[in-house]
Amino acid sequence: MLKKISYMTAGESHGKGLTGIIEGIPAGLELTEEYIAIDLLRRMQGHGRGKRMKIEKDFAEIFSGVRHQITLGSPIALIIKNLDWVNWEDRMAVGKPKKDHKKVTMPRPGHADLAGVMKYDFDDIRNVLERSSARETAMRVAIGAICRKLLEDVGIQIGSRVYQIHDIVDTKAIDKDLNMSKLNSLADKSSVRCLDKDAEKKMIDVIDQAKNNGDSVGGSFEVIATGMPYGLGSYINADGKLQARISQAMMSVNAFKGVEVGAGFASSAVFGSELHDEILYENNKITRSSNNAGGIEGGMSNAQPIHVKVSMKPISTLIKPLRSIDLTTMEPKLAHKERTDSCAVPAASIIGESMLAIVLADALLEKFGGDSMEQLRKHIESSGKY
Amino acid sequence: MLKKISYMTAGESHGKGLTGIIEGIPAGLELTEEYIAIDLLRRMQGHGRGKRMKIEKDFAEIFSGVRHQITLGSPIALIIKNLDWVNWEDRMAVGKPKKDHKKVTMPRPGHADLAGVMKYDFDDIRNVLERSSARETAMRVAIGAICRKLLEDVGIQIGSRVYQIHDIVDTKAIDKDLNMSKLNSLADKSSVRCLDKDAEKKMIDVIDQAKNNGDSVGGSFEVIATGMPYGLGSYINADGKLQARISQAMMSVNAFKGVEVGAGFASSAVFGSELHDEILYENNKITRSSNNAGGIEGGMSNAQPIHVKVSMKPISTLIKPLRSIDLTTMEPKLAHKERTDSCAVPAASIIGESMLAIVLADALLEKFGGDSMEQLRKHIESSGKY
Amino acid sequence: MLKKISYMTAGESHGKGLTGIIEGIPAGLELTEEYIAIDLLRRMQGHGRGKRMKIEKDFAEIFSGVRHQITLGSPIALIIKNLDWVNWEDRMAVGKPKKDHKKVTMPRPGHADLAGVMKYDFDDIRNVLERSSARETAMRVAIGAICRKLLEDVGIQIGSRVYQIHDIVDTKAIDKDLNMSKLNSLADKSSVRCLDKDAEKKMIDVIDQAKNNGDSVGGSFEVIATGMPYGLGSYINADGKLQARISQAMMSVNAFKGVEVGAGFASSAVFGSELHDEILYENNKITRSSNNAGGIEGGMSNAQPIHVKVSMKPISTLIKPLRSIDLTTMEPKLAHKERTDSCAVPAASIIGESMLAIVLADALLEKFGGDSMEQLRKHIESSGKY
Amino acid sequence: MLKKISYMTAGESHGKGLTGIIEGIPAGLELTEEYIAIDLLRRMQGHGRGKRMKIEKDFAEIFSGVRHQITLGSPIALIIKNLDWVNWEDRMAVGKPKKDHKKVTMPRPGHADLAGVMKYDFDDIRNVLERSSARETAMRVAIGAICRKLLEDVGIQIGSRVYQIHDIVDTKAIDKDLNMSKLNSLADKSSVRCLDKDAEKKMIDVIDQAKNNGDSVGGSFEVIATGMPYGLGSYINADGKLQARISQAMMSVNAFKGVEVGAGFASSAVFGSELHDEILYENNKITRSSNNAGGIEGGMSNAQPIHVKVSMKPISTLIKPLRSIDLTTMEPKLAHKERTDSCAVPAASIIGESMLAIVLADALLEKFGGDSMEQLRKHIESSGKY
Repeated sequence: MLKKISYMTAGESHGKGLTGIIEGIPAGLELTEEYIAIDLLRRMQGHGRGKRMKIEKDFAEIFSGVRHQITLGSPIALIIKNLDWVNWEDRMAVGKPKKDHKKVTMPRPGHADLAGVMKYDFDDIRNVLERSSARETAMRVAIGAICRKLLEDVGIQIGSRVYQIHDIVDTKAIDKDLNMSKLNSLADKSSVRCLDKDAEKKMIDVIDQAKNNGDSVGGSFEVIATGMPYGLGSYINADGKLQARISQAMMSVNAFKGVEVGAGFASSAVFGSELHDEILYENNKITRSSNNAGGIEGGMSNAQPIHVKVSMKPISTLIKPLRSIDLTTMEPKLAHKERTDSCAVPAASIIGESMLAIVLADALLEKFGGDSMEQLRKHIESSGKY
Repeated sequence: MLKKISYMTAGESHGKGLTGIIEGIPAGLELTEEYIAIDLLRRMQGHGRGKRMKIEKDFAEIFSGVRHQITLGSPIALIIKNLDWVNWEDRMAVGKPKKDHKKVTMPRPGHADLAGVMKYDFDDIRNVLERSSARETAMRVAIGAICRKLLEDVGIQIGSRVYQIHDIVDTKAIDKDLNMSKLNSLADKSSVRCLDKDAEKKMIDVIDQAKNNGDSVGGSFEVIATGMPYGLGSYINADGKLQARISQAMMSVNAFKGVEVGAGFASSAVFGSELHDEILYENNKITRSSNNAGGIEGGMSNAQPIHVKVSMKPISTLIKPLRSIDLTTMEPKLAHKERTDSCAVPAASIIGESMLAIVLADALLEKFGGDSMEQLRKHIESSGKY
Repeated sequence: MLKKISYMTAGESHGKGLTGIIEGIPAGLELTEEYIAIDLLRRMQGHGRGKRMKIEKDFAEIFSGVRHQITLGSPIALIIKNLDWVNWEDRMAVGKPKKDHKKVTMPRPGHADLAGVMKYDFDDIRNVLERSSARETAMRVAIGAICRKLLEDVGIQIGSRVYQIHDIVDTKAIDKDLNMSKLNSLADKSSVRCLDKDAEKKMIDVIDQAKNNGDSVGGSFEVIATGMPYGLGSYINADGKLQARISQAMMSVNAFKGVEVGAGFASSAVFGSELHDEILYENNKITRSSNNAGGIEGGMSNAQPIHVKVSMKPISTLIKPLRSIDLTTMEPKLAHKERTDSCAVPAASIIGESMLAIVLADALLEKFGGDSMEQLRKHIESSGKY
Repeated sequence: MLKKISYMTAGESHGKGLTGIIEGIPAGLELTEEYIAIDLLRRMQGHGRGKRMKIEKDFAEIFSGVRHQITLGSPIALIIKNLDWVNWEDRMAVGKPKKDHKKVTMPRPGHADLAGVMKYDFDDIRNVLERSSARETAMRVAIGAICRKLLEDVGIQIGSRVYQIHDIVDTKAIDKDLNMSKLNSLADKSSVRCLDKDAEKKMIDVIDQAKNNGDSVGGSFEVIATGMPYGLGSYINADGKLQARISQAMMSVNAFKGVEVGAGFASSAVFGSELHDEILYENNKITRSSNNAGGIEGGMSNAQPIHVKVSMKPISTLIKPLRSIDLTTMEPKLAHKERTDSCAVPAASIIGESMLAIVLADALLEKFGGDSMEQLRKHIESSGKY
């Protein structure tokens, strides 16, 4: 299987900053740091974020690959500096530190800590937690924003909303014909990114309750892409299937524990005759009676909106820490405390949008090729089908 | 990201047969066609299978890569012949057919048919359905069996069971200390691969009901791997995360619409303090109070059993077909009818085991290296941790 | 970096046969076994081949991926049966052998034997030599033929000729405007695939001399592709460079020890002002004063013919074997004898054509995309540049 | 095929700087910016470099992935700032430029210019030349230095020397038992990195001659790795062959036009009995009579030194430019002038070392696995063979 879009990220949570490189974006795409900043800002919002989100303001500097606001077809490098670096300069120094620093030795349940030190032979959990931190997703959002720009330019839009926090479910349906930028502007107005005002209030309450108890809550969100052509992804092999690629991307975020496409797990409980989306022909167009498939049949986009739901677990770092052990003595201890949001589900939904954007841009370029945006557009138009 | 284990499959449902090649299996692994046959047979079982499963008996011939029952380290080729080829020889001929064959022009909702013809410019849906068919999973099971053998030889075992068919849920818990081969022998005794006898009866009933109505049902299953070391997978990048690789593998099966690890979607609804698996030290061993993480923290195995749940939608081909259109005229028609199981969830759980086996063998070899089973074992032992 | 065309081969030299799977060929390409057979036959020719080439007649059966002489877009599986299998059935049995077989324990200098047993912990060199054999290149030629067909359909042609065997050099230049099918028909008429009749005679003589001495000779050949568009490959990263991909492909054949593009090593010895191909505009077309770059500048095709030269060492198995040791005793012994051509350079040039075809088809699809030949053609035409 | 070591680079020649990320380096490797600086400095040396090399002093800042001089197993990010950025700030601005800048419209023969604008639909060659510039190799050398450190820690050393500039050949043989750090210190003392003093003088003369004529010269160098174990690389597939991977890496540098392993092209002209390296047993050790194979048999390292030769063409940018055309008018013009070394072969040999280091580190980790240097060492020792 190929990747037309590939990317790497680097950087520790309290290091100098995050670095990212994305390869495969065609030449000729208009791109600015301001555009990327929008999604970075959206990721920092949400009721229940800790202190860090309040003091910081992530900004992704485009370091190369763009000239005079136009992509060059070259790899694009991004840097998000750690604005708090001055407080970590010695503890996280690349070179020799000036003084000794206390090691972290009590692994946090739910986090990479324990498995990480076992994997890498570390005696300091900080060497794990700095990279396994959710901080890295800031760079993914920046990279996702670039892919989103490419998709937008050919008519594909991505939106999301939170539909559950803890046991509070926002049952308000998304209007079938809602534009995704409209969905996002509705959801972005809510501090929990849900649509229903009653649900919003209850969600805020349960977050506050968790916060007051030194606890954390998770939730679920849905991501939708509209304007899809037929045939992104493939049925010919395991690697090509679009839902597999989307699932891989979503589940590559540590806190995400489940993913489903269309009706998902609910598909299990209905008869085939109730589930499958019938094929109709109306107004000179092929239409469907429903979208339980979530826009993917046989591993390919079917020109319906892509619809994905993702579950996020409660954050693993708790103010009132869980039982753990000290790895130097194996004595029972409370787990290490580090950065502390009580809820990050609204931010997670932005990350979900970003991951979907990366996958869809990759699949689009795989199908249509093209080294420049002009070529990509011509290739798409040449099919006469979209 | 690397793949130590890579594989390709080829073959259409009614063609000459399926071909598979797997690369990366170390030299020195004992392997026989009989061993592979066990999982192929398990995949063919289950209440609700159609006629084809009854007449066929899949057999994967090892065509190369194994000598005197020992793997050579070379690519292993497998061939599963289509025992019904004689009836399809002209319709599916590689060369010039002797006569014209009726084209399939009514796409089945839920299947690859419509998106497939759009993607590839076909005027005959058969060109799509032959490859997009679930038949291909027979080869994946054969390839998965080879990976399973490797895992077994280093103490990792994989088992599964069906816990839901349609709206019938088998709530019987799997005993925490149950051996996976024991789990499989229990589940294999049931024609729906569940554990509870009452649930089994109801599941059979709902399958029969679907069958009588020309309808189909889906369901859900769970797959478990025991004997896991610490540190398979990685937190350092998106591609390395173990849960992402497992999700990719599971969701690469067309009919699978959702996947979750550990508590999965249920994680959303509990507090962090209730969810995360506390770290204890008992009898000179690190233990955990629970396994809600499903054996994966921070994208790595944490030495707890891997626990994955997967949802399968009802089969898309219905005896009582859904509404569709004829693509040559755009007139309303009923969808094409092809092969017809009314339920394939028990088989799906075997496919799930196979996909997990492939991912875990890949991640194991990624961590430990080794060109022969002897080297692999020495590398594992040298760590002193497992 | 992506691969649009990927393939795997499997099979041991004296096993049941070779298997190959190629993924990424668009749907709608006309393809027959007869077409593939042409290149397989060309690979079997040449003065200096041993007995096996004379008794065998390789035939690649298309096992799947093609229907009614048209590719399906699905993976294409190929099988080349070992016509001599009956004589090896027990020695190379996949299952338990009926009797013991003598182990091969004297490694041949120049072959994979020694490093292979060290790598895989074998006590029988046969486990190495069966897969490391040049036999595998038969499947690469079959796969290359499929790629060649695709290229031909969009106007790219590949030809080759041998220009050196041992110290005999055919200095006859290839006519600048010679059509590649014409070049191949000229070269194919010679049993050493060279163009000059005097050189041919001397080459045959030196091969006979080697044969009479139980020795072997190598040589060099050149491969050319015409009809190239601008911009296959890329300068943006190391993996994308076209000359890197070609070199990788060529040097993946064991006996090939050197590769050069255009003027190659000779580039070292001239001034820049003498070497670089000046850019002219003649008859409303950009032309070049020469093609010392071999059709590649900055890692991209530059619309000039691709020109590659490759060196093949003498075959490592000698009738009059070299000094070696018995690995069971470390006593000095003569090396093992196995299959024995005295010269295989003409065959090597066909393999070179095949490897180039695979790389160019991959790079073409990478640039232009397209799931069907129709789409590929439309994408190419839409640029208006080719 | 897998990659254990993967990397990306980004950055334009006159942009803000180069960025690189390398993934796959185990945890626990000692690494400093000073160590990397050594090879960067070596790359900047050599008689015939232009002005830029004299004013600049490349320094690769480790931005992440290393803490307290020890690698974390996380991706390592590197940044090499452009010290001349102030002079290019507006011409190469990521954002909107303050004024118009003259477009480059006369493509340089031998460079990416013409094919690049055709590929990407550019009207300004600067958009091509900035990325296709050899400047990017500075980052590859930095990345190579990290791999070199890893190799050194397990006893593998890499050295090189220039043996030809223009038509001047340094025929002085490298002493068979010469330590590679000794070779490098000898070569580094020469401003053309050759060993023989007479050849050195003549090389300097021919470079000066080229310089005075506004011309350029190329040359050839050899790279050697000692301390190799058996079995890096593989014969089982095309992608695994070590010589293919080395050739790919070398030929991924734009100016490199030929590569050969061991006797290389000279292999063509000798009999098999003269070429192949006989296998002996002396002093309780397997030895070889020669190393014409260049340390690779059957696509694997054979415990002899790896020996690779590479040819570099003269630099394509000439002070006295070649004929070209103006792409806006198609009128004949002289080619664009840009940065101007008259010879860069000594620097090229350092790049060659770096590329070999990357390939060998990848192949080493592929065979032995290991997430930390401690594990890697244990895995290597466990074999008892090295």
